[in-house]
Amino acid sequence: MAGAAAPAVVLLSGGLDSATVLAIARTDGFDCHCLSFRYGQRHEVELDAAIALARAAGVTDHRVAEIDLRIFGGSALTADIDVPKHDPVEGPGDAPEIPVTYVPARNTIFLSFALAFAEVVGAADIFIGVNALDYSGYPDCRPAYLQAFESMAALATKAAVEGRPVRIHAPLIDLTKAEIIRRGTSLGVDYARTVSCYDPVGHDGTVLACGRCDACLLRARGFAEAGLADPTAYA
Amino acid sequence: MAGAAAPAVVLLSGGLDSATVLAIARTDGFDCHCLSFRYGQRHEVELDAAIALARAAGVTDHRVAEIDLRIFGGSALTADIDVPKHDPVEGPGDAPEIPVTYVPARNTIFLSFALAFAEVVGAADIFIGVNALDYSGYPDCRPAYLQAFESMAALATKAAVEGRPVRIHAPLIDLTKAEIIRRGTSLGVDYARTVSCYDPVGHDGTVLACGRCDACLLRARGFAEAGLADPTAYA
Repeated sequence: MAGAAAPAVVLLSGGLDSATVLAIARTDGFDCHCLSFRYGQRHEVELDAAIALARAAGVTDHRVAEIDLRIFGGSALTADIDVPKHDPVEGPGDAPEIPVTYVPARNTIFLSFALAFAEVVGAADIFIGVNALDYSGYPDCRPAYLQAFESMAALATKAAVEGRPVRIHAPLIDLTKAEIIRRGTSLGVDYARTVSCYDPVGHDGTVLACGRCDACLLRARGFAEAGLADPTAYA
Repeated sequence: MAGAAAPAVVLLSGGLDSATVLAIARTDGFDCHCLSFRYGQRHEVELDAAIALARAAGVTDHRVAEIDLRIFGGSALTADIDVPKHDPVEGPGDAPEIPVTYVPARNTIFLSFALAFAEVVGAADIFIGVNALDYSGYPDCRPAYLQAFESMAALATKAAVEGRPVRIHAPLIDLTKAEIIRRGTSLGVDYARTVSCYDPVGHDGTVLACGRCDACLLRARGFAEAGLADPTAYA
């Protein structure tokens, strides 16, 4: 008798990276419990994409945690700071060390919720789509950070204390955007369903990406470098 | 010219322990930025107490983060599991290793939000009222856990990467409840304003503690052992 698939928690934002991670976790044979956040992000159409992606993948357990990071302000993704725009051809130029789109401690908060969710569903595996290359300016996208989170988590929960610590999987950590897109495409990810733009317009399936924020530029360059058609609808 | 007081984030639940921690942080000279959570707790009168305590202490910055841990279920504090009640004289007897009032990854989630708040207000110090003696059944109340969180936080934020990591202060970590009460009383904490009960009744200043849950029993025993009058109103 074949055993049941092991449960895993997958952080699903609705973007290109996490959609790829969900496909990887499913390919690895995990029973995926997806977790998304409504955190006051200005690009909430991303959440609609997450819900559609989970449904298309046949995920039976997808929860959306309501958390309001706007009470802290401090980021272009949640507050009234303008998302930086660039010429699509020339690109961002000399980007600052840490972008204004950085949300304080966001991945720590997201992983903390994933840790709670993992304990509840009995999962020993958490998948997150962080990437150290394209997001080198975000401190919480580096391997050393993820390792430290895993070490902390090994002491944090009832499950860990009882001998079932969690592993943090970041399968995209050292991939280029082009490599991520190639990998996902080979696994059947429909990137037309994903939203990367930090400042999109539209709603309910008619989302248009701005084409000029850092996320749009990275995504467009990724498809170009992968030699694949970019399915993104731009404004 | 005296410098401005250093900012610190204080996690304030409205209970006896965190009220004491706030008094300690203020005595240590910190400019306290308090953080409380509305997390679907069944004993939400605790939050009213937190707001009243911060106001009474003259704290100018108190934020209440809305997070809904009920989507995960799994604890008597947030779900439909009964809070265990005991005979006030005989006490809890042989308590299970980890109580059903354990909320999965709660302190990790709370500290993650504190980390975000600390970065926004420029604080390098976070105070939390965890206690390893009375809550030995909670894995996230142990010194090793707090040390691991601090190590993780040192890699997690823009501030840390730029050379300003946070310290996690847990001044109650190895105190008995009686020692906590003596310490707070010496600092002028008005424990009549605090709510410890896991299952209180009433609202708006007329809170009555059940007197029979673990938290009530610990609190009552603490006042008795400290040789101080218990100001708690019991049902």
